[in-house]
Amino acid sequence: MKKITTILTATILASAIGAGAQAESHVDKAVAGAIAARQATMKLYAFNLGLLGGMAKGEVAYDAAAASGAANNIALLTQLNQMAMWPEGSDEMSVDGTRALSDIWSNMADVMAKGTALSDAAATMQAEAGKGLPELQAAMGAVGGACGACHKAYRAPEK
Amino acid sequence: MKKITTILTATILASAIGAGAQAESHVDKAVAGAIAARQATMKLYAFNLGLLGGMAKGEVAYDAAAASGAANNIALLTQLNQMAMWPEGSDEMSVDGTRALSDIWSNMADVMAKGTALSDAAATMQAEAGKGLPELQAAMGAVGGACGACHKAYRAPEK
Repeated sequence: MKKITTILTATILASAIGAGAQAESHVDKAVAGAIAARQATMKLYAFNLGLLGGMAKGEVAYDAAAASGAANNIALLTQLNQMAMWPEGSDEMSVDGTRALSDIWSNMADVMAKGTALSDAAATMQAEAGKGLPELQAAMGAVGGACGACHKAYRAPEK
Repeated sequence: MKKITTILTATILASAIGAGAQAESHVDKAVAGAIAARQATMKLYAFNLGLLGGMAKGEVAYDAAAASGAANNIALLTQLNQMAMWPEGSDEMSVDGTRALSDIWSNMADVMAKGTALSDAAATMQAEAGKGLPELQAAMGAVGGACGACHKAYRAPEK
């Protein structure tokens, strides 16, 4: 819980900085930048998961070093502090270019719990991915499940 | 040198996978995905450096937790294994949508050395960013210098 509290404190501080120190037009630019940054993070998850998925499905030959590299990357990505990427007012009702539901900000404890589930699953996959194809395949389900749990709860359907 | 050798080996393996196991149209999609992934990585660098730069320039109040969070993120990003993001044939002469010069692939040892310079500078900034504004400001120069050294050598001018 200590880590979550620290992260939440960082969120509040980041929101305070955003609201207090910047002019209105500057905030809009900041929100757009935050959305771009979190979408870049998602893109890096997808890229590395795509590499692993190709191996898991047999479309690409299993390679232990490449699998470990991608799984390490995913584990690293879960350690990014994303708090500056999710400012208040960056939900899909407030701005264009995002599918993030406003429920994220009213359910932050659940969002954090889902984030922890992802980092736990990613750590397991990091340990398993280089051992062999069956181990990789077995570890991917929990990662995909953790991604999907958050998307299902907090992402608007594609328009 | 061991680390660099490992990374280079991973590159060669990734290239072999790309060339051997995928159909031509699939390779094009893979190249586009690799370019998108490295550009997403650059975007995350820029976002976090932007947060720190705002503080360093006095545009945003210095906040130790936010500075540490951004500096931690930059240090994490330097640890990503980017090898799958730079396949042969993804330079600016071969494909649209990138400014990556083909010199990258003929000077890989220098590219890796420049990457190591960035991760060293980022590690120092990670240690210093939360100590105070002067410490953050002092540490940022080396990070910016490392970014710039690689861009100067290996990125085509903006069109």
